[in-house]
Amino acid sequence: MTVHTETARDLDRYMIAIGQRARAASRIIGRADTRTKNAALLAIAQALQDAEAALVSANQRDLAAGRAAGLDPALLDRLELSARGVQAMAQGLREIAAQPDPVGEISDLKYRPSGIQVGRMRVPLGVIGIIYESRPNVTADAAALCLKAGNAAILRGGSEALQSNQAIAACIQQGLAATGLPADTVQVIDTVDRAAVGALIAMAEYIDVIVPRGGKGLIERISREARVPVIKHLDGVCHVYIDDRADLDKAVRVAYNAKTQRYGTCNTMETLLVAEAVAAQVLPVLGRMYQEAGVELRGCAQTRDLLPGIGLASEEDWYAEYLAPVLAVRVVRDLDAAMAHIATYGSAHTDAIITEDYGRARRFLREVDSSSVMVNASTRFADGGEYGLGAEIGISTDKLHARGPVGVEGLTTLKFVVLGDGHVRG
Amino acid sequence: MTVHTETARDLDRYMIAIGQRARAASRIIGRADTRTKNAALLAIAQALQDAEAALVSANQRDLAAGRAAGLDPALLDRLELSARGVQAMAQGLREIAAQPDPVGEISDLKYRPSGIQVGRMRVPLGVIGIIYESRPNVTADAAALCLKAGNAAILRGGSEALQSNQAIAACIQQGLAATGLPADTVQVIDTVDRAAVGALIAMAEYIDVIVPRGGKGLIERISREARVPVIKHLDGVCHVYIDDRADLDKAVRVAYNAKTQRYGTCNTMETLLVAEAVAAQVLPVLGRMYQEAGVELRGCAQTRDLLPGIGLASEEDWYAEYLAPVLAVRVVRDLDAAMAHIATYGSAHTDAIITEDYGRARRFLREVDSSSVMVNASTRFADGGEYGLGAEIGISTDKLHARGPVGVEGLTTLKFVVLGDGHVRG
Repeated sequence: MTVHTETARDLDRYMIAIGQRARAASRIIGRADTRTKNAALLAIAQALQDAEAALVSANQRDLAAGRAAGLDPALLDRLELSARGVQAMAQGLREIAAQPDPVGEISDLKYRPSGIQVGRMRVPLGVIGIIYESRPNVTADAAALCLKAGNAAILRGGSEALQSNQAIAACIQQGLAATGLPADTVQVIDTVDRAAVGALIAMAEYIDVIVPRGGKGLIERISREARVPVIKHLDGVCHVYIDDRADLDKAVRVAYNAKTQRYGTCNTMETLLVAEAVAAQVLPVLGRMYQEAGVELRGCAQTRDLLPGIGLASEEDWYAEYLAPVLAVRVVRDLDAAMAHIATYGSAHTDAIITEDYGRARRFLREVDSSSVMVNASTRFADGGEYGLGAEIGISTDKLHARGPVGVEGLTTLKFVVLGDGHVRG
Repeated sequence: MTVHTETARDLDRYMIAIGQRARAASRIIGRADTRTKNAALLAIAQALQDAEAALVSANQRDLAAGRAAGLDPALLDRLELSARGVQAMAQGLREIAAQPDPVGEISDLKYRPSGIQVGRMRVPLGVIGIIYESRPNVTADAAALCLKAGNAAILRGGSEALQSNQAIAACIQQGLAATGLPADTVQVIDTVDRAAVGALIAMAEYIDVIVPRGGKGLIERISREARVPVIKHLDGVCHVYIDDRADLDKAVRVAYNAKTQRYGTCNTMETLLVAEAVAAQVLPVLGRMYQEAGVELRGCAQTRDLLPGIGLASEEDWYAEYLAPVLAVRVVRDLDAAMAHIATYGSAHTDAIITEDYGRARRFLREVDSSSVMVNASTRFADGGEYGLGAEIGISTDKLHARGPVGVEGLTTLKFVVLGDGHVRG
């Protein structure tokens, strides 16, 4: 399957051929029945398990090449695929197979005064392009989510994971072949030419949506240049606001978990807001806990009065997505000041209020414009699995189409269906 | 409110100020209660009725200027606003006021194994930019739909309708003021500088979605250049397929209505497909009816055998959106051939099958990838009013976010809400 493109025109021709094959395959997978799609997912899972040794060894070759090329240790860490990782991938596919099939579901079918019945049917989007970096498990996860939703997929992984991705692609092909689905249902682009990404995001005729997964640089470039609609994930600058009517035990528990349960995830709290009236009670307790966990605090002047010795937060800290054991802390007058802070500095990802006050909880839920808004729960819950969506292809920070965790349903759309009996418009 | 921009920098500054004011207003209208929004809609309706004479006279000035500038008669026709048109506009606003308010609706709130409750809340998109041509009633309709959905709106009408649009804008301002909503909830751009459109579609920071309404040239330009997501409407190349298991009376009735009830609308049938086995029965009857209605037919060779004297359809005819009394007719072998034709030449707008066969109806509904698919009903039903959406801001031919007629709900999105009681992630 490897194609060595020598000129830009070769590459364009190669990419257009991929797009055309994906479009043709999308018509077949789009009408495939649930049983066939699930059988393919299970067959791919089995093929991955059977190929465990080959997958790990392909991954070792990528890791060796990466080390030789002096890649960043964090990147090498994300690149690694262990035997356990292969089993987890296979298990993920089995879970997607076990989920309900959203395709073809008809909702809201109602009679209209004219006598026609009008409803909406959930249908696949068509062809989905996924552009991602390092983590090879995305190859299997993304392919499986697209397949379950009845879409054809074009996958473009990072060049550092080329061997791993090709080995996984071979397992996907085995599973598709075993169930009679077209090989082009999932295509993995194997040219390392970076211009392939530019071609992919411009093919509006063949691709219905692009999902980029990776660092901010990649996503910003794709958003800027794409001619195809993009479902994207930018920053997660998440807040917890401890209201003065909070149960302070819950407040401490949630604020501690939201920061320390994992540091590098997009739903980790990056700024803690505390109502003035309870700051003196709650901040010294939390300050000690964070200190013991090794979290560096950067506070406003009022915070520093209560926690002497911590650094002063600058304007940039309020905007920061640290993805690290660092936390900005600000004392605010009340709920309105907290919501104003979130509207100004937040990234509309996930924000939580801790309060026992019904009216304030209700206002926070309605007025904070983020993809997830929470009452008395840790921001770390913002996740497709925790929300019951099954696997997720990402967390959208867009407002249109899909907002928050995107699972199988986010890879579908609704069309109108009209049932008549010879009805005409008068 | 008129601003005379002298330089590109002045214009940029003017547009950014509009965007910032819209963003600020969107926070207030986004949390406005249903009663206040409806009161504003009714107050605007009343203001329009009270200003009937002033509106008609402003429109007369636009028409006179348009005639003097030698505008196309079809364009002048769309530009005209009669006293009856003003009453219809006011009535439209009252109907939008009478519709349910979708904002804040929470659906699917369920307990998860962790103990949290997760659901989705319907919320406004934020700021919506509408770019349109000639028809001044769009100013009132679009403003009303955005307001009901809790969005701020920035409206940019055609320069030929400037006087009419400003007069309508004044009524909108009266209605907003009467109910205490911010004036910036609806802003009408009154510079005739065409670069204003370019600035508007680039302001991703202040505008969440652009809805263009107008000719294909306008929409293609905006889709190509926009940095803000666009909900757009391109071609309506709609098909009716008469299956060989059709009830031929229904077939004739629907195929006649789909073409002749109105010629210039996007949901009008442009190509009729007829199964070989019934072509000799149905085409002569329909051919006579179309001829009497003055519809020019262009057929494939088989069609011409049955309807001697009609023109031969070229490859371009299968792609054509005539918006005129012209119809392409093709005899096809069967359902599969009909669906293949629609997939190749259609525009994924609205397509109908006429059949009494359950299995074929079921396949057509599932497999035809159009925003509306119909069984035994006229394509002319593809309309927000007929579907029960109330007024529509347009019919989307996109797949993401909103597909088909877009009403108030299409101008909202869903965020996740999480209710806990001090829950943390383990």
